[in-house]
Formats: sequence, C-alpha cells, structure tokens
Amino acid sequence: MKKLKRSARLVEMTQFLLARPHTLVPLTYFADRYGAAKSSISEDLSIIKEVFEEDGTGELQTLAGAAGGVKLIPRLSKEHALAFAQSLCKQLEQPDRILPGGYLYMSDLLGQPATMNEAGKIFATVFADRAIDVVMTVETKGIPLAYATGAQLNLPVVLVRRDHQVTEGSAVSINYVSGSQKSLHTMSLSRRALPEKSRVLIVDDFMKAGGTIQGMVDLLIEFNATVAGVGVLVESGEIDTNERLLHDYVSLANLTAVDSKSKQIKVKLGNYFG
Amino acid sequence: MKKLKRSARLVEMTQFLLARPHTLVPLTYFADRYGAAKSSISEDLSIIKEVFEEDGTGELQTLAGAAGGVKLIPRLSKEHALAFAQSLCKQLEQPDRILPGGYLYMSDLLGQPATMNEAGKIFATVFADRAIDVVMTVETKGIPLAYATGAQLNLPVVLVRRDHQVTEGSAVSINYVSGSQKSLHTMSLSRRALPEKSRVLIVDDFMKAGGTIQGMVDLLIEFNATVAGVGVLVESGEIDTNERLLHDYVSLANLTAVDSKSKQIKVKLGNYFG
Repeated sequence: MKKLKRSARLVEMTQFLLARPHTLVPLTYFADRYGAAKSSISEDLSIIKEVFEEDGTGELQTLAGAAGGVKLIPRLSKEHALAFAQSLCKQLEQPDRILPGGYLYMSDLLGQPATMNEAGKIFATVFADRAIDVVMTVETKGIPLAYATGAQLNLPVVLVRRDHQVTEGSAVSINYVSGSQKSLHTMSLSRRALPEKSRVLIVDDFMKAGGTIQGMVDLLIEFNATVAGVGVLVESGEIDTNERLLHDYVSLANLTAVDSKSKQIKVKLGNYFG
Repeated sequence: MKKLKRSARLVEMTQFLLARPHTLVPLTYFADRYGAAKSSISEDLSIIKEVFEEDGTGELQTLAGAAGGVKLIPRLSKEHALAFAQSLCKQLEQPDRILPGGYLYMSDLLGQPATMNEAGKIFATVFADRAIDVVMTVETKGIPLAYATGAQLNLPVVLVRRDHQVTEGSAVSINYVSGSQKSLHTMSLSRRALPEKSRVLIVDDFMKAGGTIQGMVDLLIEFNATVAGVGVLVESGEIDTNERLLHDYVSLANLTAVDSKSKQIKVKLGNYFG
C-alpha cells in the first residue's frame, strides 16, 4: 500500500489506465493500493473521466456492483481522426512517392510508430463495440497497424504468412487470386495461432481489389472463424467498384488517381469520414 | 487556452508526456495551453516526475534556459524488467512449444501487443543514451518489437525485406549465410528507406548463430550506416560461442536447451541481467 496525495495518485492512475485499455480494473484495486476510501477513488476517476472525454482520448466506463470497476474504452474523437486522415492524405500526395508501375511508396509513413499508433486508435474506436477475439493481418506492411489496433483493443494479433514457416508448426495454406494483378498467391496460417470460432478483425495497410483480404476471409473459413470487421489504412479508388471483391470495410484514406506521367497523386478521405 | 484545475491539468499533462517519449516539450507550451504561470507548471511537473521515477516509468528530464523544457526518457526499472523476463522465461519453458526439428513456437507470445510493448520499453531503456537515428529489423517476427522500441525512443522503423518488393522502389540486396543452417539467403533494403550515415539500432525476436543480424550489419555498410546497438528478445545458447558471428548484443532471455525427446525446454535470463 502506498499513501499518496491526490495529485500524485491522479498521475499514477492516469498512467495505469492508459496502459490498460479495454481492461476492467476493480475500484477495490485502487482503494487497496492507495489505502483510500472508495469514495475518494471515485472522485479521482471522475476527474480523469472528464479530462479523457474532453480531450477525445476515450470513455472511462464505470460498472457498478460487486464485479464492478472502471474500464477505459479508447475513442478518438472524429475531430482528431479527421485531422490525422487529412494529414495522411496530404503526405500521400507528395509526387516523389510514385514508383515504376504506378505503385506508391508508403514505407516512410508506415515506418513512423506514432502514425501507426494513431491509426490503431482510430480502428480501435471504429470497432470498439464489436465482439472481437483477435486482430489479424498478413505479412508484412500491415503488421504495425495490426499491433497498434490490438494494443488499443487489448487483443492478441495473429499473423498470416506468405509461406509456411518451420517455426509455426502445422499450418493451413490456401491459394488466392490477387484481384488487381489476377495472379495466384499462397497464404498460410499456423493451426495453433487461431482458436476455432474466433471473431476476427482484419487490418491491412492497403487494399486495391481486395484479393488479399478476401484470401484472409477464405482462410478464416478453414478455422470456423468469422470476420468481425475489416479496416484498411489506404484503399485504392482507382478500381471499378464492380471489380472489388470486398465491400464491407472501413478505410481512412482513398487513393483516387496516380498519374506517373504528370507526377500527380490524388488522395481523398476514406469511407470512415462518410 | 483552457483553464483547468491542477488536478485535471495533472491528468492531461501525464497523458501528453506519456504519448511523447524522447520529445522536448517547452514549459511555455504548457504555460500557454493552461494560461498558468511557469512556476505552477514546474510544480505540476515535479509531481509527475516523482511518480514516474517512483513507479519505474522513466526519467522526466528538465532542461533549463530559453530552449529548455521537459523530456520523458522511458527507463523501465531493472526490477520491472526482471519480472518481465522471468515471466517470459517461464512461458518459453512450456513443453508444448516444441516443434518438429527442435524449433520453438513463440508466435503466441510475439502476438501479445502488451508483451511486445513491455519488451520495447526495456530496449528503449537499454539504448536510451546512445545516439540512434532509426530502429531496424528484418521481416517478419521482429517487427512488433522494433515498432515498440521505436515508439518508446521516438524513432522511425526501417524494415529489411526477404525479397525485393515493387512497392519499395530501388533497393540494395545482399546474400547472407544463416549461421545455424549454413544456408544462403537474400535480404533487401529500399534505397530511400535509410539515409546515408544513419546510426541504426537492430532489433530482432530470436538469434541463434547471429547470421541474420550479421546480414543486416553487412547491409548497413552498403548505406554507409553504422550499428548503434543490437537487441534480441531471445537468444539461443544452444550454440558454441565460437560459432557465434555476433558478440555485442543485449538479450532478455536465453534458450539453453530444447530436448524434443523428453519434451524439456530450458530458458535462463538473457545477458541484460548480467
């Protein structure tokens, strides 16, 4: 037990809660830790709650009763999410991103942990109220996004591999067609990585026709698992919607045109913003 | 400007600082934000500083003068780090991790964002005072660890790929010998991913003879870059130290024996713990 002044207690409780999103913390935990009355702890929590809501950090849910306690649900305000997405769009429009073949270089943006964490908070906000057991992505570039989302939702992350690896044990492999290139690929998931009947949130950095994500959806069938949601950082709007394999997803940015000749890239907000 | 009571201000400042490790925040930023005197802000910061140091979160450095301000340097206490590593060792010793060929299944542990973040905090503590420009890893399983470390050090992450990808632009590829299997592999890094003369912290989930990490070291030479440090989550002590290609690294756990027949795994603390 540590006796702390209210001011120090507030700092410590704030830190404690931020490190444990989507985790129920009993009031008695704090009361015992600080040797304080539950009423004092409740007052502390209402101060923290007000600041978190005011700042667009999240909602501090209070559950009453014997099994009660407090739980931080990260909910990034739409205003914060919009500012983030606008900045992302602007960065994506930088002309020197165009690579041969009309591909876009995004690794510098995906390489910023703070950017990934912010995007993860948005996905955690979007899917906060769905029943989800695990976040899934396929290697490689969606991985930081999946972990950032998993951290905010307090969920494990499962990685689908392009090849079967010796360090994964027995695995289920499927073939899938990459929609935009019409080429055949393989993806594989370790048997023990995903319990049967899991509800899965799929996250990826980029989606064109959606073949890769559709591959993951098909893979889930092999595990009797279901899709609880799909979130992509950037979708490519360059594709005919009839050609799109997947229709139910949330995107933060939409790449509408890449013109290699005139070096012009056009990006608009993703479907999360309406 | 928001007028807040000290209690609310403490919650907000705590949150603000935790989200920005290794970032200098001028006192005037807080003073302007809250319309408070610098002396009040200094008092707030000394409360936060005391709690962070007491809790083993980190050091709140105060830099005096016109360009002064406050900077959070995450420093996880050795006590916390030890508790984390002991729990990691214990989990690694679970007999059902043994895969055919004596490999160890670790994906469930690597799939826990909170575990990765904790390990990242330890690496950020170990390398806090070195001059580093970027954190590097090779796909796939070291990626969450590299991002967790990068987030705590406020540094970007650079990913070395196994194959050359169209979305990476022009790249430098090298061949390297995986020390334990004596087999030849390729790794590749995008030209624009790493500026010349960068000082690089290499992070990976597992090291046996060190061939993969030595490959990254060799790749850095092509970029006139230098190694600022090497951190691995688990090293395999099953190898003769004469066969080890790399000697200067920090590990958190050391896998000393995997016996497939008797289903026994032995893990001890890594070299970080002396």
